Amino acid sequence: MKLHTYFRSSAAYRVRIALNLKGLAPEQAFVHLRRGEQAKPPYSDLNPEHLVPALEVDGPDGHHVLTQSLAIIEYLDETHPTPALLPADALGRARVRALALAVACDIHPLNNLRVLNRLKTMGHSQEEVDGWYRHWIAVGLTALEAQLAGDPRTGRFCHGDEPGLADILLVPQMANARRLDCPLDGYPTLLRIDEACRALPAFAAAAPDRQPDAEV
Amino acid sequence: MKLHTYFRSSAAYRVRIALNLKGLAPEQAFVHLRRGEQAKPPYSDLNPEHLVPALEVDGPDGHHVLTQSLAIIEYLDETHPTPALLPADALGRARVRALALAVACDIHPLNNLRVLNRLKTMGHSQEEVDGWYRHWIAVGLTALEAQLAGDPRTGRFCHGDEPGLADILLVPQMANARRLDCPLDGYPTLLRIDEACRALPAFAAAAPDRQPDAEV
Repeated sequence: MKLHTYFRSSAAYRVRIALNLKGLAPEQAFVHLRRGEQAKPPYSDLNPEHLVPALEVDGPDGHHVLTQSLAIIEYLDETHPTPALLPADALGRARVRALALAVACDIHPLNNLRVLNRLKTMGHSQEEVDGWYRHWIAVGLTALEAQLAGDPRTGRFCHGDEPGLADILLVPQMANARRLDCPLDGYPTLLRIDEACRALPAFAAAAPDRQPDAEV
Repeated sequence: MKLHTYFRSSAAYRVRIALNLKGLAPEQAFVHLRRGEQAKPPYSDLNPEHLVPALEVDGPDGHHVLTQSLAIIEYLDETHPTPALLPADALGRARVRALALAVACDIHPLNNLRVLNRLKTMGHSQEEVDGWYRHWIAVGLTALEAQLAGDPRTGRFCHGDEPGLADILLVPQMANARRLDCPLDGYPTLLRIDEACRALPAFAAAAPDRQPDAEV
């Protein structure tokens, strides 16, 4: 296995947490997003989406490049079932996947680097772009807080007392929110779960500032 | 089961296709997105994300509201396994989920109604908003075409010769692209698969203009 990653990519951060929870330590290749390496060969040939992460794996029918962090994490969970990242029951899995997708579909894509750059080419100042970022964080985290605080299935982590897929998505999103100085006081459940996660070595070791390609 | 839907929502369209493929016909409730019904009670109490679709289900431990179209479709696939919407092998599932997520995370969220409305409040004209829409469609479909055209696992449908999760995501996205007059000549594989899908009754009956709440 070989992980193509960038220290500050939240999608790569998610996969790093999952790999750590599974006790897997693949070779790493670094794709510098701010220098545009994702859109140039050799990486652009590997992933036509020009996004990180990608995970190269050897399967029964040859070599494959897996893309999309959630698909990669589900693959890791299926091929390395312990510890499980999804609950055993279908309703629990639906809940955890929905929490994860609320981050992956409804918060993160709007705050992706390429989207922020597009807003700048449309004439927006850094201040306006930061405002856009904080707006979608606030909308998304407000919904997530309501969903987690109002459900008895929420435990020490997003679903029960073991970390799983929803936590893996939450922690990088909270890191992004802190990086942009978004006010987080309104999300006590998210703050509590985020803190419990980051106390775990698998989450701590996946943090952007702990990566070999980290920049100050 | 009860589906909360809106005829023009692509996320609801996905779930309608999946329900049809599974031969399920739940009761429907209509949430008028352009009138803002998703942000008012009773719907806003049901789904704190204020997005459609939501699927109410009765499980072994009571009544639950499922959200996020992909989580709902995975739930339907797990609880009603025939016909399967995901391949039997982990690598195949990773591929199909990645294709689906490429639409769900990297195209659709940028073209969602609430995002287009936000751009208008930031001072952009309808023409500029349409340009934003078409830009992200073009970026996303170009990557999707490359991934599908370059992989021998692509068949009559996105993965082999039976329709599945990736096709369920593709068809509503193509419908959106056509509605905004996005040029589609550069995506022959997507056009071919989209046509094959829409020839199937399950896809045809899920189309926006076939819904009880459809408006001209």
